Amino acid sequence: MAKFIMIGENIHCIAPSIKKAMDERDEKPILERAEKQLKAGATYLDFNIGPKRKGSEGLMSWGIQLLQSHFDNVPIALDTADIDEIESGIKVYNRSKGKPIVNSADAGERRKYIDVAAANEAIVIALCSKEGVPKDIEERQACCMEMLEHGMNLGMDASDLWFDPLFIVIKGMQDKQKEVLDFIRWLSEQGFNSSGGLSNVSNGMPKAVRPQVNSIMIAMAIGAGLTSAIVNPCETQLNHSIRTADIIMDNNLFADSFLEV
Amino acid sequence: MAKFIMIGENIHCIAPSIKKAMDERDEKPILERAEKQLKAGATYLDFNIGPKRKGSEGLMSWGIQLLQSHFDNVPIALDTADIDEIESGIKVYNRSKGKPIVNSADAGERRKYIDVAAANEAIVIALCSKEGVPKDIEERQACCMEMLEHGMNLGMDASDLWFDPLFIVIKGMQDKQKEVLDFIRWLSEQGFNSSGGLSNVSNGMPKAVRPQVNSIMIAMAIGAGLTSAIVNPCETQLNHSIRTADIIMDNNLFADSFLEV
Repeated sequence: MAKFIMIGENIHCIAPSIKKAMDERDEKPILERAEKQLKAGATYLDFNIGPKRKGSEGLMSWGIQLLQSHFDNVPIALDTADIDEIESGIKVYNRSKGKPIVNSADAGERRKYIDVAAANEAIVIALCSKEGVPKDIEERQACCMEMLEHGMNLGMDASDLWFDPLFIVIKGMQDKQKEVLDFIRWLSEQGFNSSGGLSNVSNGMPKAVRPQVNSIMIAMAIGAGLTSAIVNPCETQLNHSIRTADIIMDNNLFADSFLEV
Repeated sequence: MAKFIMIGENIHCIAPSIKKAMDERDEKPILERAEKQLKAGATYLDFNIGPKRKGSEGLMSWGIQLLQSHFDNVPIALDTADIDEIESGIKVYNRSKGKPIVNSADAGERRKYIDVAAANEAIVIALCSKEGVPKDIEERQACCMEMLEHGMNLGMDASDLWFDPLFIVIKGMQDKQKEVLDFIRWLSEQGFNSSGGLSNVSNGMPKAVRPQVNSIMIAMAIGAGLTSAIVNPCETQLNHSIRTADIIMDNNLFADSFLEV
């Protein structure tokens, strides 16, 4: 099996300093976060510009060119609710280090993100839900198969649909966590790739507890067969958890120094 | 599902101070280790006196009475290669807080430990191997089913056989770890209880790395359905890992303070 793929989540417009940098096309704060994440082992960088807003036109293309020119054509996940930005971003994207990831589709209103991925030979993260949290594992599976069929009808390779199991908050939905893990296992048994935003699981928990909970959830998810996640690779405990799970799954060779390399 | 069961491993004759305390029937060092493990959340205490040796006669009974009289009849895993000590130990064992655990049988020469457990209405930890490391998952399954049949023929309830998946060292057998997890999942799917000595996985690794590796392995094993393990409950990272995995598996109710309680 291949090494678990970390998509670094730290360049997102929810962070005030990054929003400001995006609005002012200020390179430095963005490049700093990119460099830290790559040093920590991220394969992909997520570039999250949020929804369409005043002055955001051309922002995705700007970000892609900025990151790829500084970091040897680093592969990028194009993350926005503004589908036009994704399309224009892909036009300037350099594929030499990996396909672009369209982040993200779902089985409902955002199914058109699959169309964009298919039209541009991109990977798409496909959230296995239609509206809100699926009521059971069968609904998750149905959403997955609908999106798979749609993508394949458009000529996509199944391996370019990275299904998102939809990590959900433990505080409030504790009894659904096992279902998420079971669904990841099912995805893995089908041979599907998978990815998703992990940190949602620990939403609302005390700050000191969140890395602990995220770290154990990701280990259990990797054990169930998850192949990628959108995470903060600079969070040491989480990072170590992923590296260790990769050793146990035989995705990466053990060396005494494996936590450092 | 029930909470994951920690069997505290710290009272073992491999530790020089404990061997001395056992040989001299010195209560204090043993009671201290017992108290620490119980405070850290151990349900069972393993009392490991090793093989038969000069002066070890009656040691198991002494230890059981010592621990149970000081800690409200704490349930104990009777751990020794001296089967006579197990039999005489069970005679003085108080069952009010849980059956004794016979530690341990295997499908080969130590099958007779199942006989002892059956004759005494005890739980038995049953190592799914005959001689050495099983060559594949089918051999593990065959060992398991042989022991199950043997125990049930002797009148045991299946739930009193806690099958040991045989955790093996990562350095040297990295490619077998996934098989261990798959086997744990298989045990869980059959509805079987399971337990085993975890720390073997990190043998030979740098001291700083071992808690990390043990902690992630136990999380993945609990995710696969492991119901118990023989561990050091006083190792904080491991302890937190188990508590967190129990929350994710919905074995225990989440509270913001769950790592402390």
